[in-house]
Amino acid sequence: QCDLTGWWENDLGSRMHVSDIDTQGNFSGEYHTAVSSAQKPIEPSPLIGSQHLDADGQCTFGFTVNWKFSDSTAVFVGQCFTGDRGEEVLQTSWLLREKVDSLPSDWKATR
Amino acid sequence: QCDLTGWWENDLGSRMHVSDIDTQGNFSGEYHTAVSSAQKPIEPSPLIGSQHLDADGQCTFGFTVNWKFSDSTAVFVGQCFTGDRGEEVLQTSWLLREKVDSLPSDWKATR
Amino acid sequence: QCDLTGWWENDLGSRMHVSDIDTQGNFSGEYHTAVSSAQKPIEPSPLIGSQHLDADGQCTFGFTVNWKFSDSTAVFVGQCFTGDRGEEVLQTSWLLREKVDSLPSDWKATR
Amino acid sequence: QCDLTGWWENDLGSRMHVSDIDTQGNFSGEYHTAVSSAQKPIEPSPLIGSQHLDADGQCTFGFTVNWKFSDSTAVFVGQCFTGDRGEEVLQTSWLLREKVDSLPSDWKATR
Repeated sequence: QCDLTGWWENDLGSRMHVSDIDTQGNFSGEYHTAVSSAQKPIEPSPLIGSQHLDADGQCTFGFTVNWKFSDSTAVFVGQCFTGDRGEEVLQTSWLLREKVDSLPSDWKATR
Repeated sequence: QCDLTGWWENDLGSRMHVSDIDTQGNFSGEYHTAVSSAQKPIEPSPLIGSQHLDADGQCTFGFTVNWKFSDSTAVFVGQCFTGDRGEEVLQTSWLLREKVDSLPSDWKATR
Repeated sequence: QCDLTGWWENDLGSRMHVSDIDTQGNFSGEYHTAVSSAQKPIEPSPLIGSQHLDADGQCTFGFTVNWKFSDSTAVFVGQCFTGDRGEEVLQTSWLLREKVDSLPSDWKATR
Repeated sequence: QCDLTGWWENDLGSRMHVSDIDTQGNFSGEYHTAVSSAQKPIEPSPLIGSQHLDADGQCTFGFTVNWKFSDSTAVFVGQCFTGDRGEEVLQTSWLLREKVDSLPSDWKATR
């Protein structure tokens, strides 16, 4: 089964904790990023998202991180897999939106 | 003020309804997509996300859509702007994760 | 026919000139960007790329811009369409790679 | 020095050969992909691109692959780094544009 509940760590050393999943697949949690493009010190930041509840344990999921130390927002989307040694592996892609002053700067706001 | 609550429509004709924003900036809602890469008929699908609560009304936000008619998940990230005629405009980017069978297919799962 | 040769302008006011296409579909040209995240003044920059030579005039294409005023590189990929009034329209997506100091900063190098 | 000339292999087993770099930083070559979303058999496909010629050997670069076995085009953008054991490592991001029938399908054409 793909159960996102618990602690996860990625290749960059960022860690996240996911709370219990409710019956709709919704969850909340906290993201402790190891990297930042902001100038203020990093703080743990709340996340909220949802996952599919497929029986095959390879569900897709997504969540939003509302950064506490910057005006930016990140979204992650991914899928749960079972690795070679039976361990659960999350594969994710992300987008980071940095706040920009006005519409003409919109082109460079997302990385 | 950037208040996401209410109905929004994008250039492709997709529409979404965002519920009241809570004091943390969290919200839920429903996404009615006009386009799909899935084979089943489109159905309204739940969304959940969060926004910053900046006083300048140009907040960034993000949300996850848990598609009811496919095993896919989409995430959107964006910012609220005030357009030329005083209207609120949302600029967003998105990622769509389609479920794949196994890790070797992971490279093509996200568009 | 989809013939990229000539001048094109995008919504941001950036303009590019594409030279003759050779028999392999390769082309070169010059990109005059209207927007920049670099600190030095903008200069026209060389581009090089290739397109498919499909008979239906809806070819896909891609090209690389080697910015002269920064250490960055951009790539564009897209497709040629015929619009409502018979005019040729290019739909493109892009990635901008900014030079970073070291591998640990790689995560933020691309937008 | 960052010299792209020669053979490279990525984590998925795809391989590419880059020809000599000219004095402008332009190069051509051949891409042997290990993965494909097309139905026809994979064939080696030509690539064309350019790189910066920075003295520090950490240049950014980009290139276009014109797939011979499908109507798609891919672009890659990246940077050359020196790894822990002195070896050259390329970090890249890519976009794959698949040909679509008409403008209303444009939203799903790129992954």
